[in-house]
Order: sequence, then C-alpha cells, then structure tokens
Amino acid sequence: MAKTDWKAEAKALKKQIKLLRDDMTKAGAKPVKKAKPVSPLAPAAFPTLPVIAGASFAALEAGVRYADRKDVMLVHLAPGTTIAGAFTKSSTRSACVRDGQAKLTMKVPPDTGAAIIVNSGNSNAFTGAAGDASVAAITGAVAAALSLPASRVFSSSTGVIGEPLPHGRITAAIPALVAALTEAAIEGAAQAMMTTDTYPKGATATFEAPGGPVHICGIAKGSGMIAPDMATMLVYIFTDASITQAQLQRLVSRHTGPTFNSITVDSDTSTSDTLLVAATGQSPAAPLKGASLKAFESALAQVMLNLAHQVVRDGEGATKFLEVRVTGAASDDDAARVALSIANSPLVKTAVAGQDPNWGRIVMAIGKSGAMADRDKLTIRFGDILVAAKGFRHPDYQEDDGSAYMKQSDLVFAIDLGLGTSARTVWTCDLTSRYIEINADYRS
Amino acid sequence: MAKTDWKAEAKALKKQIKLLRDDMTKAGAKPVKKAKPVSPLAPAAFPTLPVIAGASFAALEAGVRYADRKDVMLVHLAPGTTIAGAFTKSSTRSACVRDGQAKLTMKVPPDTGAAIIVNSGNSNAFTGAAGDASVAAITGAVAAALSLPASRVFSSSTGVIGEPLPHGRITAAIPALVAALTEAAIEGAAQAMMTTDTYPKGATATFEAPGGPVHICGIAKGSGMIAPDMATMLVYIFTDASITQAQLQRLVSRHTGPTFNSITVDSDTSTSDTLLVAATGQSPAAPLKGASLKAFESALAQVMLNLAHQVVRDGEGATKFLEVRVTGAASDDDAARVALSIANSPLVKTAVAGQDPNWGRIVMAIGKSGAMADRDKLTIRFGDILVAAKGFRHPDYQEDDGSAYMKQSDLVFAIDLGLGTSARTVWTCDLTSRYIEINADYRS
Repeated sequence: MAKTDWKAEAKALKKQIKLLRDDMTKAGAKPVKKAKPVSPLAPAAFPTLPVIAGASFAALEAGVRYADRKDVMLVHLAPGTTIAGAFTKSSTRSACVRDGQAKLTMKVPPDTGAAIIVNSGNSNAFTGAAGDASVAAITGAVAAALSLPASRVFSSSTGVIGEPLPHGRITAAIPALVAALTEAAIEGAAQAMMTTDTYPKGATATFEAPGGPVHICGIAKGSGMIAPDMATMLVYIFTDASITQAQLQRLVSRHTGPTFNSITVDSDTSTSDTLLVAATGQSPAAPLKGASLKAFESALAQVMLNLAHQVVRDGEGATKFLEVRVTGAASDDDAARVALSIANSPLVKTAVAGQDPNWGRIVMAIGKSGAMADRDKLTIRFGDILVAAKGFRHPDYQEDDGSAYMKQSDLVFAIDLGLGTSARTVWTCDLTSRYIEINADYRS
Repeated sequence: MAKTDWKAEAKALKKQIKLLRDDMTKAGAKPVKKAKPVSPLAPAAFPTLPVIAGASFAALEAGVRYADRKDVMLVHLAPGTTIAGAFTKSSTRSACVRDGQAKLTMKVPPDTGAAIIVNSGNSNAFTGAAGDASVAAITGAVAAALSLPASRVFSSSTGVIGEPLPHGRITAAIPALVAALTEAAIEGAAQAMMTTDTYPKGATATFEAPGGPVHICGIAKGSGMIAPDMATMLVYIFTDASITQAQLQRLVSRHTGPTFNSITVDSDTSTSDTLLVAATGQSPAAPLKGASLKAFESALAQVMLNLAHQVVRDGEGATKFLEVRVTGAASDDDAARVALSIANSPLVKTAVAGQDPNWGRIVMAIGKSGAMADRDKLTIRFGDILVAAKGFRHPDYQEDDGSAYMKQSDLVFAIDLGLGTSARTVWTCDLTSRYIEINADYRS
C-alpha cells in the first residue's frame, strides 16, 4: 500500500460517509445513534479477500456485552490444517491465552480439523477458576458441534477485564454459528472482534508456487492497550499453503518481532494478545520448500506488517501515523530502547498531535532511554529534512520546513545514533484528547 | 501536610481567585490575558519559610524567553557552606548539568562561599559547544560579581530544548541580581524557575538540636517531563545546619530514591534535572552527629518528599493525586517495576481522570510490568476497600463503593503481590485532555 493512496482513500471514505448521511437526512431517516467516527487514518474499505480453501467463517450477535452488533465469530479449519501462533507475555494473561498456549504444544491427532472461536465485550482475564471453566465450556461445545477434539479448538476473548464471562450466551450461539459457516464470511468475523476499533482490519497476499497459487488472508482487531514485545493483539491469518507446523511456527516467530512487536499505541499491553496462523494445505501448490517457502515467508511478513500498521492507524484518537526509524545504534537492544522511548513518549506524541516540529523532545526521549548515545554524534531527520547534527540544530534547518512537514498524516522520524550498525523501526500514532475521552469513558 | 487540609485549601484558593476576578470585573478592569489556571491540587499558598542564615536570594525579569515575568534567580551562600546534589542520568543532559556534576566533585577552596543561578525559558540542552560557552559565561560573571571561584558557582536552565541560550540577557542582569540579594526573597526565586508550573513550590522543616534550632527550606519547579529514576526536576534546599559535605551527600543520595525518584507525571525525563542541597553551617546548633544527625535526616527527607508531592500536584492537567503502594514483591526491582508500570500506564491514568474504578487496568499494568506476579496471590485495594483477591473480584466488592472512592482528589491504589517482602510506593497524577492541550501547544 503506497502512503499517498491511504490518504486519498481516507478522504474518499469521509466523503462517502458524508454522502450517506446526506441521503439519510433527505430521506428523513434518523440514525438510532451517532455512528462512531472512523479513524482518519483508516483505509477506504475492507479489502477483497480471496477464499482460503478449507477455512470457513461465521459471526453473529450473542449479546455478550454489547447489543445490536456481532460479537462472536467462529472459524472452522479442515483436517490437515497446521497452526502456529504467538501470545502475550503478560503475567496476568487471560484464561483463553493460557489454554491456547498449552494446546499449541500438544500433539495433533491425525486427520482432525481445528476451530477458533472469538468473542468481544469480555476478555475473561482475571476471572480465576471460573474463567478456566468458561474456556472449557466454550471450546468443549465447539468441539462437540464440529466433531473435533477439544485440544484443537482455540478461543480468544477481548473486552472488559475482571468480569465473569457469561459463557452460556456464547455456547447457546454455537449451533447457529456452525449452521452459518461459509468460506466468504471473513469480513463479518473481523467485525465481531472489534471493541474500540473504528474499522475491521483485513489484509491479503497471493503468490505463484510450483503447482498453483498460494493465498494468505489475515484479520486483526486492536486500537488501544497496544504495546510491543509481548506478542500482539488479536490476529488470525489463514492460508491454503501446504507447510509443516515447525516451518510455520518458525516463520511466525521470526516475523512477530519486526511487525506486531514493533507497534505501540499507548505502551499498555493487553492480557489477551493472540496471533494464530493456520495453513489448510488445500492449495494446488506443492508443499512449500526452497524458493516457494521464501516466497511464502515474504508474503506472510507483508500481511503481518500490513495488519500491524492497520492497528496503529486505528490507534485510539489517532490523527497521525508515525514511523520511528533508529539506525547507528551500538546494539540491537539500544536501537529498540531508543525507538520505543520516542514512540512511547507522551511529550513526543502530543507534539505530533499539535503538528509541532518539536525535535527537542526527541532529544529528551533519546536521553532518557538508557541506551548509549552521544549528543555530538547523533542526527535527527523529519523525513528527508536534516534537523539536528553534531550536538546542535543544523544550520540549514528552517522551522518553517519542519512545520510544513508535520502537517502530513504520515510522518517519519529518522534518528541515527552514529555509534554502530544496529537498527530498529517501530510504528506509533499521536496522543490526542480523543484518546483521553475514549479511555476515561470506555471500560476495558 | 494532612490530606484533608490540602483539599480545603485548594477550595479556598479557588474561591479567592473567584473573588479576585469578581473585584476586577466590578472595577471595570480587564486582565491583559487570562490568568493561567492554578492546579486544583495546589496548596492554598506558598508556605512561610524561615530565614536561612548565610543564604540570600534575588529574582528578576531578564527576558530570556518570556516577557513580564521573573525568569532568572540568584542564590548567594556564605563561606563555609557545604553542597550536595543529584542530577539527571539522561545521556542528552544539558550543559549546566554536566558543569554542575563536575563542580560537585571538585575540592572546595577554604573560606569561599558559593552561588546558584537559575533561568527559565531555555534549558540550554542540545546546544553543542555554544551551550558550554554559555555556562562558562554565566557562572564566570556570577563568580566575578560575588568574588567567588567559578568552581563554586552552579547553574541550571529550564525551558525549551535545542535553542541557543541568549546568555547575554542573563549576564546583563547579574549586577541587578547581586544588588537585590536578601535573605527574604526565596519565594521570588521559586517563581523565577516556573515554566508550565501553575504555582511556586516551597517546603520547610525545623528541629531543635543541641545548641539551637536547625532550619531547612526548599524550593522546586516541575510540572511536565517528570519521571523517576533519573534524579529529579529543579530543586534547591537550604539549611543552616553544620554538617560535612560527605554526610550531606550521603543523606541526599539515600533519600532521592524514595522521594524525587518515586514520582512520575508522564514518564518523560528532563534533560535538566538538578537537586542541590546547601548547608551554611550558621545555625547556633553544634555540628550534627548522632541524634541530631538523625533528626536532620528525618527533617530533610520530609522536605524532599513534600516538594516531590508538590511537583506531582502540579502535574500538567492533573485533577487527581494518586499514591501507588506495592507490597509483597519478590524483589525491590519487581516492586518498582509494578509500581511504575501502574503509575505510568495511560489506561490507568485516564481511568483515574474519568473517576472509573477500573481495577482491570491495574491487573493489565501488573501483567505487562515484567515483574513476577501470580494472578491467584495478588490483592488490589482502593484505599481500604478490598477489590480483588485470589484471582477474582472480591465477593464483597461493590462497584458503587469503588465509584464513590474514585471521586476523591487523593487516591491510594494498594497492591500486594503476595510473593515476598519487597515494597515500593510511587506517586503520580491522572492523565487528562488538559495535558494534551498543554503539550500540543507548549514548546518544551
């Protein structure tokens, strides 16, 4: 996705909403409640996702917490599907995360399929033994309905922490979910996971392998309580590739770092973060190896990064998408420290919100990071504009150029520490009053 | 200071402002610009500080950046004064911090006094070799005017980062500052340091030692870019105690951790943080030792904690003062991690702003901290209200009680991890839209 396209698409989307509202007004129709504003950084539309043979989807309203919206989704995966994943490292992670982690290490019975069931509205985190019982009830009911072993049914819950999960509402919905399963319903599944998200997130990639094409589709939810290095938010990626579990897990683990673990909205880490990647093996392509495995890795990494960026673009209250590129660090750890110190700094993020080219706060954030830094060796750039070097504002830097740059919706802060060869790029959004409004009201 | 007093005092202060405005309206007078609103958590008035024999103060308008306000202050300390301190650990710390750190380790010539000069409006940080030259010019001019060695003149600068300091405006003001020096002008000195502060901060303690009373007075500035474990903001404490430099430095180092390094407004650390404690030795009391040294330590710690709390109470946009008390941690490091993870969590801080008893976000912050935690062993209390225990919301906890508690302006979140004996208490404020407004506009 080219950056310029996003902007134009966002603009088109806003226009579309306006036209829709005008039409409603003309028709004398009144919306029941004010539509939640869509992030100005959102893509124009949910992408058209190809069917993944062997994967079917369903979503419906179970009334877990919200009324009048889809809040439960089910994915059914055909026999032969391999599954890899990554989970939050939080010590207070939810019951379903603990359950999923355990199941991912279990031996898979031959010729069995698998399922994933996800609800929004309640995260089933910090719900004690009752939370474990809820997971057992839900995954057990799905297993029975689809004739699967319970060890192949994964679940996720997202929403309020510390409230008992009314799992009866979910188990009651399972027959209807099973009846509704179809290969085409992936967008509804993405919608059913949303909490403070303002749009459903999807991404896809296809490549030609010996024997035929391989498809990858992914969906994600996430908007707040987003911080890196602990895994991710809720992300499900499906492919028809034929690939072993060990290969798939290796690729997922390798690319979680530079994608989902390189984004931050608010430095807060969810108790429910889950990434699952399922490969049905139903592509006509031969089992992946060599060049086709490389092509798959590249396509998977692209889908992961696309979804990670979409989560940041839906960051609570976000009006700017910021890439923080750190190079020249003395170590990988230092590069990450500096990048995250800048990306998580409230003072940097409020300056971005205010369109203020306040590079002094970048200096501050480098200084507090604990990483090796030498004032006289580091350089700071806004995009291609050289702002500071040799321990001082660059003589050619004009504040007007910085101000003009900051008006863009997609920004790059490039910092070279001039000390070594380590680099790290992370992505974040600005911190606005809207973030405060959302989180002083919303019960997560 | 009792908590209930603060609330009443803040209320009285608001009333006072209202009366003043009413009077102005009646008189037909219009304020040139709207007065900056004072933090609702501010004490009613600057405290009455006793004279510290051997310490004199002056403050005036030098026009460093702001017009129509005092922005430079000078402290003159008599011969025999011992000085101890602590500084920011930022790797991009300012020229005056580097200078002060070096001077604090130099051998003190006998029978010389000392001086401290502070400006607001410009932090002289990330200003390269020109910044070092500014420090030399300013401290050199003070040394000449007061017949001191330059090694005994400390300076601090606070304000915008990365702009050349117009030090000529400061050196030009030195003769007038020297002429104005008086033992009574400490409040003006506190005012001259303010940036986004809404009130000047002062605190005092007095105790009886063999031979006579010992007095301690301190002043501080700080409101944003406040985070612990890197030293502090700008704090100057004066005492007439007779104490050796080694004793004084030991006490300052010991109490910086549980006071200034235990507060956070926004997790961002200043490039200019400086704490200096000066003892003139002019009290009639005998040199401190044994019981009198203990009494001094206790009084000094009290002044340090009082000033640290006042900085949090003036946190940018703050409406709530929050104490986070962590006990039962497996290690001191774990206790600090959990306490700071909670105190710096944007989601916890916005919930506090919204008066939402959202203990699920405390669970989240414990989980992300990286410290050892066991869901089933930890307990969470709002003040004395037991909210969660044994991995679940406590059966007696009523959401209404939590909601009522959150309406108070002073809050305590007490977390026991149930794993060990380590403890840490930190203080912070809430995160409000006003913080965003201040920092999207203010150029720090």
